[in-house]
Amino acid sequence: MYLTEDQLLVLIIKHIKEQKKTDFKNLIEELQPYDLAVIYKSLPEKHRHKYLLFMDQKKIAVLIQELEPELQIDILHKLGIEKSSNVMNLMENDDLADLLNELSTDSARPFLKSMEKDESQTVKNLMSYPPETAGGIMTNRYVWIRDNYTVRDAVDKLKVFAEMAENLYYLYVLNDQKKLVGVVSYRDLLLASIEEKIEDIMFTRVISVPADLDQEEVATIIERYDFISVPVVDDAGKLIGIITVDDVIDVFIKEANEDIEKLSATGKTIDFQTNAVTASFRRLPWLVLLLFIGVISGSIISNFEGTLQKVVALAYFMPMIAGMTGNTGTQSLAVVVRGLVSNEIDGNTIRKLIIRELNVGLIIGVICGLLIALIAFIWKGNLILGIVVGSSLLMTLIIGTLAGTIIPLILYKFNVDPAVASGPLITTLNDIFSLTVYFTMATIFISYLM
Amino acid sequence: MYLTEDQLLVLIIKHIKEQKKTDFKNLIEELQPYDLAVIYKSLPEKHRHKYLLFMDQKKIAVLIQELEPELQIDILHKLGIEKSSNVMNLMENDDLADLLNELSTDSARPFLKSMEKDESQTVKNLMSYPPETAGGIMTNRYVWIRDNYTVRDAVDKLKVFAEMAENLYYLYVLNDQKKLVGVVSYRDLLLASIEEKIEDIMFTRVISVPADLDQEEVATIIERYDFISVPVVDDAGKLIGIITVDDVIDVFIKEANEDIEKLSATGKTIDFQTNAVTASFRRLPWLVLLLFIGVISGSIISNFEGTLQKVVALAYFMPMIAGMTGNTGTQSLAVVVRGLVSNEIDGNTIRKLIIRELNVGLIIGVICGLLIALIAFIWKGNLILGIVVGSSLLMTLIIGTLAGTIIPLILYKFNVDPAVASGPLITTLNDIFSLTVYFTMATIFISYLM
Repeated sequence: MYLTEDQLLVLIIKHIKEQKKTDFKNLIEELQPYDLAVIYKSLPEKHRHKYLLFMDQKKIAVLIQELEPELQIDILHKLGIEKSSNVMNLMENDDLADLLNELSTDSARPFLKSMEKDESQTVKNLMSYPPETAGGIMTNRYVWIRDNYTVRDAVDKLKVFAEMAENLYYLYVLNDQKKLVGVVSYRDLLLASIEEKIEDIMFTRVISVPADLDQEEVATIIERYDFISVPVVDDAGKLIGIITVDDVIDVFIKEANEDIEKLSATGKTIDFQTNAVTASFRRLPWLVLLLFIGVISGSIISNFEGTLQKVVALAYFMPMIAGMTGNTGTQSLAVVVRGLVSNEIDGNTIRKLIIRELNVGLIIGVICGLLIALIAFIWKGNLILGIVVGSSLLMTLIIGTLAGTIIPLILYKFNVDPAVASGPLITTLNDIFSLTVYFTMATIFISYLM
Repeated sequence: MYLTEDQLLVLIIKHIKEQKKTDFKNLIEELQPYDLAVIYKSLPEKHRHKYLLFMDQKKIAVLIQELEPELQIDILHKLGIEKSSNVMNLMENDDLADLLNELSTDSARPFLKSMEKDESQTVKNLMSYPPETAGGIMTNRYVWIRDNYTVRDAVDKLKVFAEMAENLYYLYVLNDQKKLVGVVSYRDLLLASIEEKIEDIMFTRVISVPADLDQEEVATIIERYDFISVPVVDDAGKLIGIITVDDVIDVFIKEANEDIEKLSATGKTIDFQTNAVTASFRRLPWLVLLLFIGVISGSIISNFEGTLQKVVALAYFMPMIAGMTGNTGTQSLAVVVRGLVSNEIDGNTIRKLIIRELNVGLIIGVICGLLIALIAFIWKGNLILGIVVGSSLLMTLIIGTLAGTIIPLILYKFNVDPAVASGPLITTLNDIFSLTVYFTMATIFISYLM
């Protein structure tokens, strides 16, 4: 009964070749948008146009939403302006706004122009919200009812807007000033008797968000309350859109990727499809910065040229001390950055965190310091060398841990994203601190080291 | 009309003190579970017990699900075995299984014993699934109907199970062998006429998952298809549970945090609440490993003692070369690890990725190499030194980029998590490669450097 992906593909090509439109339609009837898109991508280029022609426009509209921007634009060109605008009328308008953002403004204009006036106005409005806010990810595909409706009125309205309500599970209740005053789930409608008043069965303590709220905060609200959608209202409390949980999942994935990119200093979004030149230039700023940081470290070492000249063995422990300090700072940074996502930050939390990290620095410093002192002593047979290296490491690990904790907190206080700004800062400072501490210790004890 | 959090808290304490149970109930009636939990945590300890006593058990059941394990267990003890087990009967059984997993098996037994037999059997079954699989995160709180029901039968059954169906939006359709054969949304029920057969209106191409599927794959399926729930079936196709989108969001957040922890080598979950000793010992394994890697780097340098002794200035560029190579490797690693989440991996993708990264290594290597050569030349007035440092950096950046790409792919091929295993491996190899290349170059050109 169920076909594998390959069998499905073969059958679809067969139907396309033999022009069997009805068989084709039956075959794809119950397929999910994602599957339609996968098939489109697997089809040889020569069959793609026919594949689209055989489909009704509603199907194309859901398929197109699953594709990458380049393929979306390719499809619009395949369809031509007129058919494209029909399809675009049927698309979720948040996805559509994203797509039109991808097209340059000039090439977007003819498409917007040929769309239905209502729809294109909505999309234009949507495009006016910053992309990473509630307004930027909301859709206007929802069904509203008046508070004085009966359940029967509500169901009748739902029947008219059945298609639009496909992936929705609530009706939004407005009063006579179009203000959002409640929500009613389809379940509530099923359980109520047909003559009941909506205002008697609706849930009134509706949690809504303003259009300019950051998308990350919208995501947190949906996650916290286990919602599957949240309404967006303007300053007057009027309903202007809704945000659905599937868009919120995308937000979570995107934000996590951004944190990882920032922490690993990969630079702006690089994925498997990015070409080499673009990827290089996205990575270069951070690397060039690191290069200059490296030169600063080098100039610190050169200040201790005399010491190093006398005991070349000091160089052996340099990579270890700088590496450990840097890593310790990054560990603390990662804990703080992810902690800021899920914790409320007050003075008490910060004080406790800093004391905790100070203790962590002490504990790991003492353990690693003793360990390296022992290794240095055994390796070079010089107890003083062991003490210099070990106590330097103790100090630099404490400094590294605290820098990795305090710097992101300060940045956060000043509304700078700690993930993006702390990396270079912490690396520079930790390099400078650790080499200075190490060579200062060595210079003090130089007579015992020679 | 709407109270702030503080006003709400003050009012609740007032009602508790004045024993006004009805006012209390009216006040909390429409609050969300998350809000009930926030209030519980904000209440002074002395009022918490009364707060629970004033609430009905259904409210306690949803409140408890929002708390951390320690507070949950504290509440169970506050309530006593009998009342606890009533509350537990009303909890989502996936949350309950997690809670009971937190209790040691011995202290879980009396709770399980006093629960309703059906419910405790279900929970026991649920506890038998590994925690990070579909079985571990599914719930049995769903409503099923038979395929030969009419819409009227379905709505009647829904009315009986109304409370259970509160956060659900689909009915699951079983045939006479209890096999899952379709789903019907509440919307479908509203739109259909009351005498229609379920089998005529149900959606039959249901996408389900097996109980042993990794939770990350479940999450991907829900994300891909924009589902709000997905059914779990056993080998015979029988429905055994469902997974809802809110649990999937938690999975996404958890997995992203895990990736970040692994990439930043923070060690197992450290949050703001972890105490210093635990946090230290979670971070130590990686730091001790790094320490030994540092010693290996040191011993490589010591092999070139002669070269270093002759030109101490070579030491100035060591931190820069090792740091840049390490960072370049981490950048590539992050791109690969996150890419593996969302890409299908075949030979073609891998070949293209490796060629891309080779080109990236070349481009950044040439640019950074020229830059540092120029800096070295200006700083030390020695052209050959510039060439040695610059060409070493070119080579090590290419090596670093490739190591950061190929090693995680190999690990992935052998089913080892690339995020956790590649970090140390890449750092070690890059340290060894970069220092060896640098000092070998320097040794070759030593006569021009002195």
